[in-house]
Amino acid sequence: MAIKLEKPDQYKEFLDKFDVFLFDCDGVLWSGNEPLPGVKDTMELLRSSGKQIIFVSNNSTKSREDYMKKINAHEIEAKLEEIYPSAYSSAIYVKKVLKLPEDKKVFILGEGGIESELDRVGVKHTGGTDASLRRAVNSDDLNTIRPDPSIGAVLCGMDRHVTYLKYCMAYQYLQDPNCAFLLTNQDSTFPTNGTFFPGSGSISYPLIFSTGRTPKILGKPYDEMMEAIVAGVNFDRKKACFVGDRLNTDIQFAKNSGLGGSLLVLTGVSQESEIYEKDAPVVPDYYINSLGDLAKKA
Amino acid sequence: MAIKLEKPDQYKEFLDKFDVFLFDCDGVLWSGNEPLPGVKDTMELLRSSGKQIIFVSNNSTKSREDYMKKINAHEIEAKLEEIYPSAYSSAIYVKKVLKLPEDKKVFILGEGGIESELDRVGVKHTGGTDASLRRAVNSDDLNTIRPDPSIGAVLCGMDRHVTYLKYCMAYQYLQDPNCAFLLTNQDSTFPTNGTFFPGSGSISYPLIFSTGRTPKILGKPYDEMMEAIVAGVNFDRKKACFVGDRLNTDIQFAKNSGLGGSLLVLTGVSQESEIYEKDAPVVPDYYINSLGDLAKKA
Repeated sequence: MAIKLEKPDQYKEFLDKFDVFLFDCDGVLWSGNEPLPGVKDTMELLRSSGKQIIFVSNNSTKSREDYMKKINAHEIEAKLEEIYPSAYSSAIYVKKVLKLPEDKKVFILGEGGIESELDRVGVKHTGGTDASLRRAVNSDDLNTIRPDPSIGAVLCGMDRHVTYLKYCMAYQYLQDPNCAFLLTNQDSTFPTNGTFFPGSGSISYPLIFSTGRTPKILGKPYDEMMEAIVAGVNFDRKKACFVGDRLNTDIQFAKNSGLGGSLLVLTGVSQESEIYEKDAPVVPDYYINSLGDLAKKA
Repeated sequence: MAIKLEKPDQYKEFLDKFDVFLFDCDGVLWSGNEPLPGVKDTMELLRSSGKQIIFVSNNSTKSREDYMKKINAHEIEAKLEEIYPSAYSSAIYVKKVLKLPEDKKVFILGEGGIESELDRVGVKHTGGTDASLRRAVNSDDLNTIRPDPSIGAVLCGMDRHVTYLKYCMAYQYLQDPNCAFLLTNQDSTFPTNGTFFPGSGSISYPLIFSTGRTPKILGKPYDEMMEAIVAGVNFDRKKACFVGDRLNTDIQFAKNSGLGGSLLVLTGVSQESEIYEKDAPVVPDYYINSLGDLAKKA
């Protein structure tokens, strides 16, 4: 049963219960490029109360530096080591779990954030923002694009420059069963400019359907992402609360990774009515109209 | 139980049983751009025996004229009214079943074949081969692309120039529940140049996953396509045999549309062993190593 935070003593009890707050960003801290009211005050309240803060995002287009700039632009304090976009958790996975041999490369169907994070952990890559792949397929491509033993993994994220040429390359590399198939996150939509457009999970689907393979998903709600976070920031999962705007990613992530609590904010994707639907995929421990209410009413 | 045609009396019995032969093209008549041995002789044998011949293809990139040229290039006789690519069955569906109002347009995620066939039946369209959509999305697009009541249907086929911009447009149009969602065919792969690349069904998947909508599929193995064929060429389905190289499209199509028979050729996608697999999706009535064997051994 989800508890709606409305009264001051409920806020206080909620804040006292957790030492660590992990935040989804878009729909929680801001919406598109617009700040959400009171968020800055709430974040300052948490900092001054000595809470540990971690920023988590399934958005794979940005590196941690990019994210830090974006968070700071909303006048929210953030340090690099507090920021976990899926580009970073994916790079950690390739380096530490997959242990990609040094002579192998990652083929990226995605944007610059993934490239930056792979560079930082010293993993070679191809594809990604390579402008020469933003063109039509020609018959020479169809004759020459074939499985390539130098490609050890295909890593898919959000790619606003996706082309059939990139799909053809990734499809052929994935014919090799030794080539890993990785996905930064499975979000079906990408919230921006007050609406939605197809997201990373959707962009990757041509490869899932054509190869018949199931990718390893490295973003929320999968525990792989929490493993990456805990590897960087050591904390007691039971004293941590995940704050997000989507039931099927954020709140599910809190459950999948065994966190002590979850808080849904109603400033993003999921609506209050969805919590009470018979087939609600998962229910938050707490919910609140807006993150800003915490500072306003506590 | 599938019967393998091997002896002359089996060939004769098979040929006597049917008046109409419907052929899938790629993998049956040719492979990529290469002719398959003996096919020309088999087609001439059928013509000289007074059999009716129909060419069927899920390839949506070509119009009927394009296909006629391709068939003739392999020295196989074909008339325009014998040719049914999925671009044509899709156009017929939009015009006759959907009865798209004259003030509405079809947004095409696909190639020129669909445009030609929609032009012929007098249906307005946008998207398709429009070169101005083969570019990156910009922030102006994200602010302005929204549901559009002038778009009555999104029709997806194979599109080797697919871009995120086109996906964004189609995604927004499909937010309008009155906008129909159509797919020329669901083939996961596109056989060419001796290998495979992602096919029409795969290209459409970002829209299926992001919108949560299920498209109406207008190619094999769905009966909608046979309805279009029978509307053009009147014949007794029980005296007709479908000849193809894929169990889950061609042979399933013969079953779904109530044809009298089906013949699998082993020169394309499905292999002999698949017929005998425990989970074979569907089994042909007859199978043969190569279509050319019919003329050689009959």
